[in-house]
Amino acid sequence: MHDLADLLPVTRRSAPLVHFITNYVTVNDCANITIAAGGSPIMADDPAESEDITRLCAALVLNMGTPCARTRDAMLAAGQEANRLGHPVVFDPVGAGASAFRNSVALDILRHVRPTVIKGNISEIRFLAEGVGSAKGVGACPTELVNEANLAEALSVARRLHAATGAVIVISGPIDLVADGDSAWAVDNGHPMMARLSGTGCMSAGVIACHCGAHPGEPLRAALCGMVCMGISGELAHQRLTADEGTGSYRVRLHDAMSRLDADILRRACRVRQLA
Amino acid sequence: MHDLADLLPVTRRSAPLVHFITNYVTVNDCANITIAAGGSPIMADDPAESEDITRLCAALVLNMGTPCARTRDAMLAAGQEANRLGHPVVFDPVGAGASAFRNSVALDILRHVRPTVIKGNISEIRFLAEGVGSAKGVGACPTELVNEANLAEALSVARRLHAATGAVIVISGPIDLVADGDSAWAVDNGHPMMARLSGTGCMSAGVIACHCGAHPGEPLRAALCGMVCMGISGELAHQRLTADEGTGSYRVRLHDAMSRLDADILRRACRVRQLA
Amino acid sequence: MHDLADLLPVTRRSAPLVHFITNYVTVNDCANITIAAGGSPIMADDPAESEDITRLCAALVLNMGTPCARTRDAMLAAGQEANRLGHPVVFDPVGAGASAFRNSVALDILRHVRPTVIKGNISEIRFLAEGVGSAKGVGACPTELVNEANLAEALSVARRLHAATGAVIVISGPIDLVADGDSAWAVDNGHPMMARLSGTGCMSAGVIACHCGAHPGEPLRAALCGMVCMGISGELAHQRLTADEGTGSYRVRLHDAMSRLDADILRRACRVRQLA
Repeated sequence: MHDLADLLPVTRRSAPLVHFITNYVTVNDCANITIAAGGSPIMADDPAESEDITRLCAALVLNMGTPCARTRDAMLAAGQEANRLGHPVVFDPVGAGASAFRNSVALDILRHVRPTVIKGNISEIRFLAEGVGSAKGVGACPTELVNEANLAEALSVARRLHAATGAVIVISGPIDLVADGDSAWAVDNGHPMMARLSGTGCMSAGVIACHCGAHPGEPLRAALCGMVCMGISGELAHQRLTADEGTGSYRVRLHDAMSRLDADILRRACRVRQLA
Repeated sequence: MHDLADLLPVTRRSAPLVHFITNYVTVNDCANITIAAGGSPIMADDPAESEDITRLCAALVLNMGTPCARTRDAMLAAGQEANRLGHPVVFDPVGAGASAFRNSVALDILRHVRPTVIKGNISEIRFLAEGVGSAKGVGACPTELVNEANLAEALSVARRLHAATGAVIVISGPIDLVADGDSAWAVDNGHPMMARLSGTGCMSAGVIACHCGAHPGEPLRAALCGMVCMGISGELAHQRLTADEGTGSYRVRLHDAMSRLDADILRRACRVRQLA
Repeated sequence: MHDLADLLPVTRRSAPLVHFITNYVTVNDCANITIAAGGSPIMADDPAESEDITRLCAALVLNMGTPCARTRDAMLAAGQEANRLGHPVVFDPVGAGASAFRNSVALDILRHVRPTVIKGNISEIRFLAEGVGSAKGVGACPTELVNEANLAEALSVARRLHAATGAVIVISGPIDLVADGDSAWAVDNGHPMMARLSGTGCMSAGVIACHCGAHPGEPLRAALCGMVCMGISGELAHQRLTADEGTGSYRVRLHDAMSRLDADILRRACRVRQLA
């Protein structure tokens, strides 16, 4: 997958419009990282216009970080319209498993929308993999992280959710896992300090959507490229941090790094390995 | 218009309260740039209180970046109350033309509220100029930018919207155009990197509202001063950017520059010319 | 209270989950400052899930910065559930006194929820102290600040609200006042530049909630520790500001400072004195 780096300049040139229906916590970071990654963001979360807006765009992000009935309905309407038009849909099931309502929103989306990519942490992806068939309410899972020790188990969870949905599955963590039915990859890029910022997960979904929008037929490579771009940006941001700086500066430098990323940087820093 | 610089210290001294009904994407940037520009922001977007809040304030911003029925109703109620009290109203028709719902919100506002200033990009202003009379649904216009070549055509669009609404019209772009029925001005301040940040347009409307609130009888000069303040801040932010910084640092420095702006800086850096 | 510094490492180790129902203006700053202070934030503002989410958490923040009927109902449901479970509730009555609706929300919360800590500026706390019994509508109070001259009067307001609610009362200002029925303290930490950022008040409530969540039996010390942490972060941020920086950099450095705070820094810089 050394040619992942070739996706970035194409994404920057095509500047895909990305429609976000997302939470109000990290929405500004999503907007700015999308521009930094080469896309152009539009936020519109009301059923009165979500189909219209999605029609104008090259990709759609559904992020249920702060769900309510109104935005759920907007997500369902936009998701179905994007499916109808063949636009890539990136689903970020934030907090799936944490409340009965959130669980019902996640399962409603999977019942009515076919996501192109589903990106979550291991708890969220496990909830979806188990919940799709049974629709049972599930309490919040303990936080787990994908590492070398549980990589095989995480892959089997990803494979189950792929089998149920047809989507490319991304499980984020110290190691990111990206898999579809044919192949599976581990992304070793990233830095532990990313976990000390709110919104790096949401931003990742936005960056994936940029690459999906510019490369609609290649969701696996687009998802990999998105995770690699975020991971390398997290590494570069840390390298530039001075001794007396903390999370505030780290966030600024993460945006700096993404906005300056190019194919050469990507090629040199990309750490992706095939698992299956 | 060299005396534009005189508005800033008065705005800072009077510290006008500015009521924002705005989108949740760039709202934090709007709050912080308002303080940096000398005002004091209050966000309140529910019809249950939007009139009460507007009564306390010196100016009102109506920004339809993420519209829904609830915030539309809050905008109409607050806008009418501001009109009744003679408070300046700055209308930012974000995304006008992009969806039937957004178009209906924009036209509802123009039918029921008399904005003091309308600020948008050329697509948004053209939609309003054409839509006020006919209320026709219009799809998203291609992105255009005001430059030397289309300045005269942009001015005629601004003049048409002024004739229909009585408002001072601001068309933002590489060249900003500010016009009422009597005169028209071009603002050459600004930097291309401003377009790589989410929210510079929304922030401009907030800064205009600060100056309108402190100078309620002079909307044309207040609008010009707001655009000049934003443009110069964008230039200073770029001057201070080091070689390894990107959009994250640029955003920080934009806020830095606005918070440090004074009449001397404005006088030296202001690049405004009269067109008509 | 020199042992205040001992609370911080315990908070960092226990990493309490904090549920926020808060405004969309400063919500991202609240999320990031919570992580920087040692907690883990979850935002969920819909009645469909607010009880479920609060059950998972160690503390709850109710901030009415941009209230509507939906989030009011979510605050009431979550607040009552937190009370039932004995979870600390930090109430930030943003803008109490500014509109009839906001006043009714504030009083509804006090009628149906028993906050552990109430934090506001002197106008907001005075409104609550006067309004609890009478439920009268009150217009916006002029901005006042707690200083040496009015400290005794502020204390009497805090004592009245404590008597009516049983909560630890925090009045923020150039001097912060923290009081319950037994003792009262002044916090002299802080820097005037904090008032030039949107959201420092909201962030303070979040930091208090982190310490309350990790030390549920000690709300007075937790509230004091939260205000000291914010004040010292504000001082350190200012010390690190270079001559050509402004409010944008100040905000970044405030987050930096909070994320790097430890018991040693706290012990050296803490300026707390007992008033009663």
